[in-house]
Amino acid sequence: MTENSCQFRIETDSLGPFNVPANAAFGSQTQRAVALYPLAGARQFSDYPKLLIAMLQIKKAAAQTNVEIGVLKPDVGAALVQTIDAALKAPNAADFPVHALHGGGGISFNMNLNEVLANLANRSSFDTDYGTYAPIHPNDHVNLNHATSDCFSTACHIAVRQAAGDFLHQVNGLSQDLRQLGTQWSPLRKLARTCLQDAVDIEFEDYLCGVASGLDSQLARISEVVKALNAVNLGGNVIGRQGDCDPAFYDQILPTLNAELVQSGMPGELTRAPNLFAASQAHDTLLTLAALLDQMARSLMKFAKDLRLMASGPHGGLSEITLPAMQPGSSAIPGKINPTVPEFMVQSAMAACGRAAAISMTQDHGELDYNPWQSVVVTELLDMIAILTSGVSSLRVHCVQGMQPNAARNTDNATSLLPSLIRLKQLKGYSFAADVAKQAQGDLDAVRRTVLAAEAALSTSAIRLCD
Amino acid sequence: MTENSCQFRIETDSLGPFNVPANAAFGSQTQRAVALYPLAGARQFSDYPKLLIAMLQIKKAAAQTNVEIGVLKPDVGAALVQTIDAALKAPNAADFPVHALHGGGGISFNMNLNEVLANLANRSSFDTDYGTYAPIHPNDHVNLNHATSDCFSTACHIAVRQAAGDFLHQVNGLSQDLRQLGTQWSPLRKLARTCLQDAVDIEFEDYLCGVASGLDSQLARISEVVKALNAVNLGGNVIGRQGDCDPAFYDQILPTLNAELVQSGMPGELTRAPNLFAASQAHDTLLTLAALLDQMARSLMKFAKDLRLMASGPHGGLSEITLPAMQPGSSAIPGKINPTVPEFMVQSAMAACGRAAAISMTQDHGELDYNPWQSVVVTELLDMIAILTSGVSSLRVHCVQGMQPNAARNTDNATSLLPSLIRLKQLKGYSFAADVAKQAQGDLDAVRRTVLAAEAALSTSAIRLCD
Amino acid sequence: MTENSCQFRIETDSLGPFNVPANAAFGSQTQRAVALYPLAGARQFSDYPKLLIAMLQIKKAAAQTNVEIGVLKPDVGAALVQTIDAALKAPNAADFPVHALHGGGGISFNMNLNEVLANLANRSSFDTDYGTYAPIHPNDHVNLNHATSDCFSTACHIAVRQAAGDFLHQVNGLSQDLRQLGTQWSPLRKLARTCLQDAVDIEFEDYLCGVASGLDSQLARISEVVKALNAVNLGGNVIGRQGDCDPAFYDQILPTLNAELVQSGMPGELTRAPNLFAASQAHDTLLTLAALLDQMARSLMKFAKDLRLMASGPHGGLSEITLPAMQPGSSAIPGKINPTVPEFMVQSAMAACGRAAAISMTQDHGELDYNPWQSVVVTELLDMIAILTSGVSSLRVHCVQGMQPNAARNTDNATSLLPSLIRLKQLKGYSFAADVAKQAQGDLDAVRRTVLAAEAALSTSAIRLCD
Amino acid sequence: MTENSCQFRIETDSLGPFNVPANAAFGSQTQRAVALYPLAGARQFSDYPKLLIAMLQIKKAAAQTNVEIGVLKPDVGAALVQTIDAALKAPNAADFPVHALHGGGGISFNMNLNEVLANLANRSSFDTDYGTYAPIHPNDHVNLNHATSDCFSTACHIAVRQAAGDFLHQVNGLSQDLRQLGTQWSPLRKLARTCLQDAVDIEFEDYLCGVASGLDSQLARISEVVKALNAVNLGGNVIGRQGDCDPAFYDQILPTLNAELVQSGMPGELTRAPNLFAASQAHDTLLTLAALLDQMARSLMKFAKDLRLMASGPHGGLSEITLPAMQPGSSAIPGKINPTVPEFMVQSAMAACGRAAAISMTQDHGELDYNPWQSVVVTELLDMIAILTSGVSSLRVHCVQGMQPNAARNTDNATSLLPSLIRLKQLKGYSFAADVAKQAQGDLDAVRRTVLAAEAALSTSAIRLCD
Repeated sequence: MTENSCQFRIETDSLGPFNVPANAAFGSQTQRAVALYPLAGARQFSDYPKLLIAMLQIKKAAAQTNVEIGVLKPDVGAALVQTIDAALKAPNAADFPVHALHGGGGISFNMNLNEVLANLANRSSFDTDYGTYAPIHPNDHVNLNHATSDCFSTACHIAVRQAAGDFLHQVNGLSQDLRQLGTQWSPLRKLARTCLQDAVDIEFEDYLCGVASGLDSQLARISEVVKALNAVNLGGNVIGRQGDCDPAFYDQILPTLNAELVQSGMPGELTRAPNLFAASQAHDTLLTLAALLDQMARSLMKFAKDLRLMASGPHGGLSEITLPAMQPGSSAIPGKINPTVPEFMVQSAMAACGRAAAISMTQDHGELDYNPWQSVVVTELLDMIAILTSGVSSLRVHCVQGMQPNAARNTDNATSLLPSLIRLKQLKGYSFAADVAKQAQGDLDAVRRTVLAAEAALSTSAIRLCD
Repeated sequence: MTENSCQFRIETDSLGPFNVPANAAFGSQTQRAVALYPLAGARQFSDYPKLLIAMLQIKKAAAQTNVEIGVLKPDVGAALVQTIDAALKAPNAADFPVHALHGGGGISFNMNLNEVLANLANRSSFDTDYGTYAPIHPNDHVNLNHATSDCFSTACHIAVRQAAGDFLHQVNGLSQDLRQLGTQWSPLRKLARTCLQDAVDIEFEDYLCGVASGLDSQLARISEVVKALNAVNLGGNVIGRQGDCDPAFYDQILPTLNAELVQSGMPGELTRAPNLFAASQAHDTLLTLAALLDQMARSLMKFAKDLRLMASGPHGGLSEITLPAMQPGSSAIPGKINPTVPEFMVQSAMAACGRAAAISMTQDHGELDYNPWQSVVVTELLDMIAILTSGVSSLRVHCVQGMQPNAARNTDNATSLLPSLIRLKQLKGYSFAADVAKQAQGDLDAVRRTVLAAEAALSTSAIRLCD
Repeated sequence: MTENSCQFRIETDSLGPFNVPANAAFGSQTQRAVALYPLAGARQFSDYPKLLIAMLQIKKAAAQTNVEIGVLKPDVGAALVQTIDAALKAPNAADFPVHALHGGGGISFNMNLNEVLANLANRSSFDTDYGTYAPIHPNDHVNLNHATSDCFSTACHIAVRQAAGDFLHQVNGLSQDLRQLGTQWSPLRKLARTCLQDAVDIEFEDYLCGVASGLDSQLARISEVVKALNAVNLGGNVIGRQGDCDPAFYDQILPTLNAELVQSGMPGELTRAPNLFAASQAHDTLLTLAALLDQMARSLMKFAKDLRLMASGPHGGLSEITLPAMQPGSSAIPGKINPTVPEFMVQSAMAACGRAAAISMTQDHGELDYNPWQSVVVTELLDMIAILTSGVSSLRVHCVQGMQPNAARNTDNATSLLPSLIRLKQLKGYSFAADVAKQAQGDLDAVRRTVLAAEAALSTSAIRLCD
Repeated sequence: MTENSCQFRIETDSLGPFNVPANAAFGSQTQRAVALYPLAGARQFSDYPKLLIAMLQIKKAAAQTNVEIGVLKPDVGAALVQTIDAALKAPNAADFPVHALHGGGGISFNMNLNEVLANLANRSSFDTDYGTYAPIHPNDHVNLNHATSDCFSTACHIAVRQAAGDFLHQVNGLSQDLRQLGTQWSPLRKLARTCLQDAVDIEFEDYLCGVASGLDSQLARISEVVKALNAVNLGGNVIGRQGDCDPAFYDQILPTLNAELVQSGMPGELTRAPNLFAASQAHDTLLTLAALLDQMARSLMKFAKDLRLMASGPHGGLSEITLPAMQPGSSAIPGKINPTVPEFMVQSAMAACGRAAAISMTQDHGELDYNPWQSVVVTELLDMIAILTSGVSSLRVHCVQGMQPNAARNTDNATSLLPSLIRLKQLKGYSFAADVAKQAQGDLDAVRRTVLAAEAALSTSAIRLCD
């Protein structure tokens, strides 16, 4: 026996024989994909564990359903379920080497999984070698009654739903952090600007709760779209046709999958998409989610840039707040501290927006009955969510939760000439304010004293709005 | 008196004297803006009639409210209302020459309107000259108790709500057209492809209803966002502070404005935004709408490209459908007909997506308490909606409603080898299909006959799914 | 004779008879396009005079060439040239009503022009009625030896070349303005920041010349691309095939067109594109130009935002420069002045970037031998250039040329603690600076005195770099 | 000694003490960055070997220069050079764990490298422990006379120059492949379409060389931009000020670095950027490159989609070419082969365009003297180039080089009615063609025979243009 024959086994598929690494749990179709799509630093199937797990869950539910409806032998089904359960507990990255992008439709992901599960189950339950695909065949048994199209699309929904949940949790936490700071810092006032020019005074809480409220609105909208991901097309195998799988499978697969999800601690609320042809023609809900996350990324970027601007200085900037010092800020200037954590948020947002741009291109490049670009959609979307989650969690812990207002500077700004006169106008009318301005002749202290007197004369300060 | 003094009048504002065309109903602030922002073919305030009307409605409601709460003399209020009613009936484009983009915040739009209303009302009701601003002053009376910030933002919501309604009506019509065609063309079958390769046969209705269903889902999501535009910030004058206007005005302005809207045949459902500071920091709802319209534009583009592809030919293309011949298609090739109407839809979608890209930049370039880029948002959004509305309405009337399927070609495709074998597999099982394939030895007609026999043996054809 | 028959004439083209307004110089194909593509506020052919003129110049050169090579009767050629010359002097907008977007390939633009020129020339030179198309026929004579494809594409290059020239002239002027300011303001120093945190002191001239130099580099790159527009595909009629026009026409048309351009005061440097099939497959050079203009728009936006930030205040901002006061800045806050001219630049840049996004979509949506989206490319590109030209010219005249540095603030910033210590380190070494910092114990004045002494001790200050 | 003290060492930097893994070659500033920026599947410094190598080369040249000009002790310099040479040969990924995005300006990359080199050199040459930073200090010695700003920016140029070279080599190869196929397939004719409608016949070579020529033009433009990357800002330390490093270092560093590059087999053509302030304000050349690569990605996507369309079928598509069968194309439909390799190109292009979108945002978010978003620029750009390189190399080897034309189909298409009549018109004039069309009465064979006769009568076929 030559050395070479030890390193490779030969598998034969519909395109003929192909060398597969002898010890690989995957087979020829996976190996073909590995050879076709050079990684060059790019990410692979195993880099998307949430997606892998969702596909495993679907394969498990399919095996269970197929046994239940009598089209899969119980021992084959049991072997598959056992193998899948093991993989769910500890997926082996080396088994899933396919490039995250691998041509239209996710078929290499699906066949990678089919081959691995068949080989592992055959070996462990039936003691047959890798590559024999007997008694369990990747297509005939692991893939039975579903196809790449509906399996992959459903897995995308489950995985993204999961990832989005983590992210929304962080954004919700940021919103709460901001409201808490607002309460802590109250009643400190600050200067509000329009077009970067001094305008009026507000409470710092007004600003902070405004940001929180904006995030909350976006959160509510995004949460609705995440919920809409519960509608999946499993059962509409190729192009949305209902008849391609066993009617009993069609009826039973979603309840079984929901039970599996619940057992894993996930919400089990999957329903069938209202029109399976539409679900094949476009990945609408995922695309809507990406668009809304793009918007949120831009809002987070705006807020992070606000922090940088308010913390600018120490001498020549606004110096309204002090951010926690987390890193020395220069390799050349001793003592300099940069707002690197908000900047990480900005960078994360930029990277996320780029992903959203890639995702949106998949919509107009869909065609006829089928949109083949789903692996772009799901990998870029999962990346995007991960990037944003990192950015927000770092921003919360390493910046927002520890930042402090510079009371003196804010009070000075909030009581400078323009806001003071506007407050006087608000409290005592325009002519009174104009008179004060005239008499003061630029003496800011005099104006400030008049404002204080006017405020004292009122039983309560101006109503502040914060939901 | 020199000739020049006849052509201009001199108005003096806080920046000093400024020449204004003698017969202009607008004043110095408008004329300053005209001088600052050269049009060069760009659009101006008067090119956005829906926005102009919404601002007029707000000015009217403000005047009425100010009279009602006792801060505006009844005769002044009546003069304003009379002038506004005339402008609502027949707005004079020449009165509103300000460049659609004119620096941050829409102030030139608002001051253009304040000046015009003051001048027109003073002349018609009090017989005072343009530029005297007495008894009615642009700021003290027309702009009383509101500011550019909340007035313009609220007007944007009203105008976009109105424009989006027209567009959604067209898209809804397109969806209905498609379902109707689906019914008419049923039970004609067609070839469905994945990755542009022949896959399975479906009914033409499946494809058409799939497109319709996708549009419907997007419509539902967009309609929710349009509804969310009902939340406006009128009353939170500058930066969201509640106290900048009279509390009675704050309480009364929205009911009065709603009444005015209802009287004009519009929905009167405006409510106050939950957090006025958030409403000043970002134009979130408008931005979400733009993002969802971008997605819909891409879906429409995909569908229009589908039509082109299905109609490609006559000899060397798919030739599945025939589009109505609307224009000679070449200046050089006699007899050529191009799918120009779907192409107009594609072009409209591209133009719309560009507008969405511009709009989304405004979010990350917001800063601190105020997002000053609202005139970019609203003008690009109104353009985007108008462009898409044209595209869809033309597509419906000049293409979709008159297109025809080429029955022979579709039947031939739908019963070609691959779909036939898959149908046999579906009807009689895999081994039966494999046997037929073997025995037929490439004789497509033989395979087709077997399929027909198998179908005839069933009381009903395969279930077709269409919501 | 009924009234209706007076208002319309009936023209018959390859699709049958069609009503055309009786007095319209255009014919049925134009009128079909008008009916197909509702304007809804969008722009039309006549809104792009540079494009219209370029097409007229091509039609003129084609007529001259066709006469010269003996395929067009001299009297027909003379009639056409006369008509075109009149249109070049005073184009009649009403003659060119076609929607700027009108389906793939610009055919309605071209046929609009062919019909108008035929009708006008027939009437004026041969006294035949509109719609007779004799002796001059739109296709057989006006369009002789060229097609929409090569004529329109060439016209796009000429028109964009012209428009880009105007814009580059403005940007070049801005660069010169900045260098001149740099000289005037020298040797005023200012604080330079990294990550918005105080870093080192530089001369104001360093900042201004840095911006100018960046613009110059982009200008150089853009100018090269504009030069590349000189390569045109005229003569490669439909898809790039050379043989579709008379070989003599192919040889002669460019020299004749160049002569016509030179006579109109334009550069006459057109050459034939190296590969006519490539020129049909994509609009590469126009797309590259759009991409580089997008980049320049973003740079201009950055600079305009710099101006806003440096001018922020008056109390709570950086207040490093004062921009000319051009407009009252608030309808509610008296005395407020906003940086509306830089903001107009920002808005123009955003609008321009949106156009670039639309343009870039046309590249990936090209297909096979022909990219049909050129009317999107050229109209969005001309809009983009016009918008940017307005923005820059306003920025120069109404802001940059009149802005002033606030010397005291900049000097104070530039000599604050951090830059002072770094300058000391630069002049006298790290330990000296550290000692001074220690002894000064936060006494900024003491540190400043030491810096001044150290600087005085040197014959020359630190070398400043500005190309 | 507790177990914990064995696992960590405590380092103290300007922010105080910080735990560092005891065996880590990096130090506290790196560890702070690791703690601040959670990876969550994102990429790190070590994932960008080209960037790491470029920074090592700069550090080496800096050490050599510093010794040469007498500011670094020879033994320290030698130790550093020795350590760097070892790292250049075999960089240790575990030493460079910093998140690719880590706040503004690349400081954590630079400090990561400074710390690792100091620790490794101290240990190997001076036998001092990690964390002692004596005799070699990360800032005082490794970073001597340069700063993050100029070092990182210069490294970005070097790394991207290198990566772009690999990519351009592949695209150039693709262009050559296409020209070679053109020659091989000649003189096979094919149908050319405009607006997807049958138009005229061309040679297949015309199409292929058109694509090649388009790529060549883009290549030429991109190559110029890559050359422009040779201008670097090394020596303009913080913000572009020339005086921040030793004048002798300023004079010597680039020649020394060029020598090092040449020694490594890279081109040594670095020059100093004409204006160092501009180089700090923006990353213009990198951004231009990204924009042009975005355009090329879209062209590649268009071409890959062309391949899919021309290969569509087998029954219901164009079937003009056959792509090599590389993978079974369906988990559900036996025998189906999908064009997954062109689809991988499309997906790669989409991913690349997303990266370009992220990169372009960094330009407008620059501010004042410094653009802090360079780590976004360089990592997204290197990713983008790697993705595209994978896509093109796979497309060449696994698709283009093995594809075959379907001669019969193309010939049939090319001689169908419309192209035949146009060819007749071309060969014998319009009236002859019209007569033939009339007499043939739809008999395509009759028309074809006439064309053949007419062609035979000519000594040569129509001239074909291919540069």
